[in-house]
Amino acid sequence: MLSTTERTRLRRLGERARTDREDLYDVLDAGLVCHLGVVVDGSPRVIPTGYGRIDDTLYLHGSTGARSLRTDGEICVTVTHLDGIVLARSAMHHSMNYRSAVVYGTPRPVTDPDEHLAALRAITEQLAPGQWDAVRPPNRKELAATAVLALPLAEASVKVRTGPPKDDDEDYALPVWAGVQPVRTVFGEPEPDPRLSPARPVPAHIHGRSTRSSAR
Amino acid sequence: MLSTTERTRLRRLGERARTDREDLYDVLDAGLVCHLGVVVDGSPRVIPTGYGRIDDTLYLHGSTGARSLRTDGEICVTVTHLDGIVLARSAMHHSMNYRSAVVYGTPRPVTDPDEHLAALRAITEQLAPGQWDAVRPPNRKELAATAVLALPLAEASVKVRTGPPKDDDEDYALPVWAGVQPVRTVFGEPEPDPRLSPARPVPAHIHGRSTRSSAR
Repeated sequence: MLSTTERTRLRRLGERARTDREDLYDVLDAGLVCHLGVVVDGSPRVIPTGYGRIDDTLYLHGSTGARSLRTDGEICVTVTHLDGIVLARSAMHHSMNYRSAVVYGTPRPVTDPDEHLAALRAITEQLAPGQWDAVRPPNRKELAATAVLALPLAEASVKVRTGPPKDDDEDYALPVWAGVQPVRTVFGEPEPDPRLSPARPVPAHIHGRSTRSSAR
Repeated sequence: MLSTTERTRLRRLGERARTDREDLYDVLDAGLVCHLGVVVDGSPRVIPTGYGRIDDTLYLHGSTGARSLRTDGEICVTVTHLDGIVLARSAMHHSMNYRSAVVYGTPRPVTDPDEHLAALRAITEQLAPGQWDAVRPPNRKELAATAVLALPLAEASVKVRTGPPKDDDEDYALPVWAGVQPVRTVFGEPEPDPRLSPARPVPAHIHGRSTRSSAR
């Protein structure tokens, strides 16, 4: 179960909340990009970046020189999947179907070499499953240049909206189409690097992914 | 042109920066969801939400009771499009092709009734073009319950990455497939509300959208 803190308790629309840890894993594991929130000089900064998960730890990486990773305080990591546009009979009941996870915490710089490498593997595999074992692993110089932060999955909220619009009772009689327009993330046909030998086929772990109907 | 401030100047990978205002408009106008960053009790909070744009103003809305909109200070709004997964010959050169916009500023609560209504229209049309004129407009009670913030598009950065991986020179000889796996956001077939009369056809502005190949 996910514990509820003041800021992870949903003040409004509580029926959208999910409290199982598996729901959190599902949302995080299905994502490709997270939005990392940090406070810089008192102001919020939100940047898209990759991530990975091992058990109850979320990993982020960046250049050792990147300012967004040199944070002292708390960070917030949000992963959002847009699943549909909810088309209601009235303008103000338009909405989205989505799954989102918001994780709060103070990250820990990863210094242990084994954990550092495992985290980089998780981040790479999150983006491109099967790639880690297919490509050149990081060398010493690359490892030294890459900072990794570990964020415990201790304080998080998960929200999910599904289903048709919820219109006002009197609006159901309006002569207006209503429903959901599904939104999906799909993979296209892999595009070879122009510098690649044409004879080299697309590996199964990449090609197989491109034929899936959704990035979930 | 977008002016450059300390935090919108790209410290690293400067070749990804875009400085034309049209590039900012393109990224914002192609989006469905933004990630809104606020500072609450000194900590960052990042939540997904809808938005709209009119000229050089970005609009956000929410319940008048929502804490995320009762912010005194600066906010950050980020819109990200993931266009592809960059599959390199080495693990650490894996990357993403993307377009992102990051807007900083102190929002202004919208109190003028005409601007308030125009902003709600822009937010609805961003999510579902053509819907505003097809559905019941907001009534007085709904308008009173909906807060709108206006964020000037004055300080923003746009980043775009395209193209194949950039591998280390010596890695191009490795027997590894490399290239880009495209990622696209697509609309599915509209799903009618179960409470809708089956005789009501899907309007052209919705059906037409579902046949496009991309949400851009």
